[in-house]
Amino acid sequence: MKKFINDPFNLVDEMLDGFLAVHKKKIRKLEDVRSIARTDAPVAGKVGIVSGGGSGHKPAFIGFCGEGMLDAVAVGEIFTSPPPLACYEAVKAANGGKGVLILLGNYAGDVMNFQMSADLSAADGIEVEQVILTDDVASAPKGQENRRRGVSGAFLCWKVAGAKAAAGGSLAECKEVVERVNANTRTIGVALSPCTVPAKGSPTFVLADDEMEYGVGHHGEPGTERIKMMSLDDTVQKMMNEILVDLPFTKGDNVAVVINGLGSTPQIELYAAFRKVKSILDTEKINIENAYVGEFFTGLEMAGFSITLSKLDPEIKSLLDAPASTPCYTC
Amino acid sequence: MKKFINDPFNLVDEMLDGFLAVHKKKIRKLEDVRSIARTDAPVAGKVGIVSGGGSGHKPAFIGFCGEGMLDAVAVGEIFTSPPPLACYEAVKAANGGKGVLILLGNYAGDVMNFQMSADLSAADGIEVEQVILTDDVASAPKGQENRRRGVSGAFLCWKVAGAKAAAGGSLAECKEVVERVNANTRTIGVALSPCTVPAKGSPTFVLADDEMEYGVGHHGEPGTERIKMMSLDDTVQKMMNEILVDLPFTKGDNVAVVINGLGSTPQIELYAAFRKVKSILDTEKINIENAYVGEFFTGLEMAGFSITLSKLDPEIKSLLDAPASTPCYTC
Repeated sequence: MKKFINDPFNLVDEMLDGFLAVHKKKIRKLEDVRSIARTDAPVAGKVGIVSGGGSGHKPAFIGFCGEGMLDAVAVGEIFTSPPPLACYEAVKAANGGKGVLILLGNYAGDVMNFQMSADLSAADGIEVEQVILTDDVASAPKGQENRRRGVSGAFLCWKVAGAKAAAGGSLAECKEVVERVNANTRTIGVALSPCTVPAKGSPTFVLADDEMEYGVGHHGEPGTERIKMMSLDDTVQKMMNEILVDLPFTKGDNVAVVINGLGSTPQIELYAAFRKVKSILDTEKINIENAYVGEFFTGLEMAGFSITLSKLDPEIKSLLDAPASTPCYTC
Repeated sequence: MKKFINDPFNLVDEMLDGFLAVHKKKIRKLEDVRSIARTDAPVAGKVGIVSGGGSGHKPAFIGFCGEGMLDAVAVGEIFTSPPPLACYEAVKAANGGKGVLILLGNYAGDVMNFQMSADLSAADGIEVEQVILTDDVASAPKGQENRRRGVSGAFLCWKVAGAKAAAGGSLAECKEVVERVNANTRTIGVALSPCTVPAKGSPTFVLADDEMEYGVGHHGEPGTERIKMMSLDDTVQKMMNEILVDLPFTKGDNVAVVINGLGSTPQIELYAAFRKVKSILDTEKINIENAYVGEFFTGLEMAGFSITLSKLDPEIKSLLDAPASTPCYTC
């Protein structure tokens, strides 16, 4: 394992120290727990938006804590759910008296620990709702969407939820719009090489020189197929074939596209992938309204990328375009 | 070589097609050459700021083309200087009648081709000045600063030049402030693994499992030492020891810090590196005014990072903080 680290068990704290020092104008650490909040949280009279999960996915989750996106984030160890108390304090920090919406990936530990935080918060009299994000088509078949993992489509959900809350939306309205985004969002990922969790010290999977892991999760979860290397265009075509029929996306739809690097894929390849996505959507007469290319939800240094398509309506489009100011995303 | 590509010789064009489609509101392609400009260039009555170089360093260079930074960028093949005509058209596209300032890394091909573009532009009656950036302490000894490579400190130079031009600075003033930034900026890089240029197909260098390339350039140029793996803190200490004495940076200085990922180093490690940089600067009583952690000037998928320190004065600080809106940097 070649990494720039000290003790692997201190890495998350050392990262967080650095992160807080760089972004001190926008975020602060909560006392006694490993959670953060925007400096001005709770914002009185605004629905609080909370997320969290394991570390190693940066810029997710903490990079999107700030005005117009997440109010507070609970920070776990690498690829490990944050403890219930960290989730609970994040909810309390985000509570401006109008309720708190928790957005989380569909991972057992996150679901359990955030449920406990919701129960504790409810006992405090805080109104809490949750939306479990499920955009990864590779993780369960159509018809079993609620078993799917939440992956890079989460970026769109955080953006929309934060904007809806900033615009004065009620807790029910914020929840409804995120459910609408999630229901209309589909993602699939592919990897060329694994990542290594520092505390474990060995790769999450092993691929031959001519193999790709198709349908990979962003912790390195096995995909649906181990396939031979293909050209970029053939890879994108295969991914798009799967995403397009799943919703389905059809002629005349307006969509947002996210091309998300999983860690070590150069931007030059991500933009080339976007070119092929656009070419396919042009042929299908599906209109790209918003496009995001870069790293949003990584898996440490995994080489790979995911494609997310999200069907837009005018409200969702305007919420995506609303201002945000966070450490890793400003618009 | 495992990469998401089609024909390696089409990769830059395919990337550029995708990039232009994503960022069409901010940038446009110039006709007949592989160069880009902000959509509203030339801005009448403003000094034009131009840069360019080989591809594979994204977000540099094209990611910083836009309001408050670069007006136009000439795009080369991967790790290859753009041809003179592309540089010349970039200069013309940036010329708003108040002169054009070219900022370039200290690479023979870039220097030669941009000099030809400057000569051609001068023959057209465009006033052109150049500043050659030289922040990499590893590439030549102290006293021979003009032989040093320009690396991630360029990000600060582009930002300051763009802001000075936007504020109405003359060509001479823009040149002077960039020369001041360059003279006060020092960078050093380290790598754990190489990158592979697609058209070549083999790594730029080979390291043993327990080795680091210390002082590496961001094309994978050999560093000053091949050293054994060390902890993150020891690595940062060694890098800082070299940078601090080179300028030197001393007690009471105000500085900007850039922690630049070279491609596949996870952000978690970059922020942990910043923490150690801050700890060292705190001890030295050097004050961090501005901090930037992420990818600014990569070398494809190289694993590694660089540390840049830049001594600030009030004018430079305010130019760094001035608004910018580019595809990959907004403030």
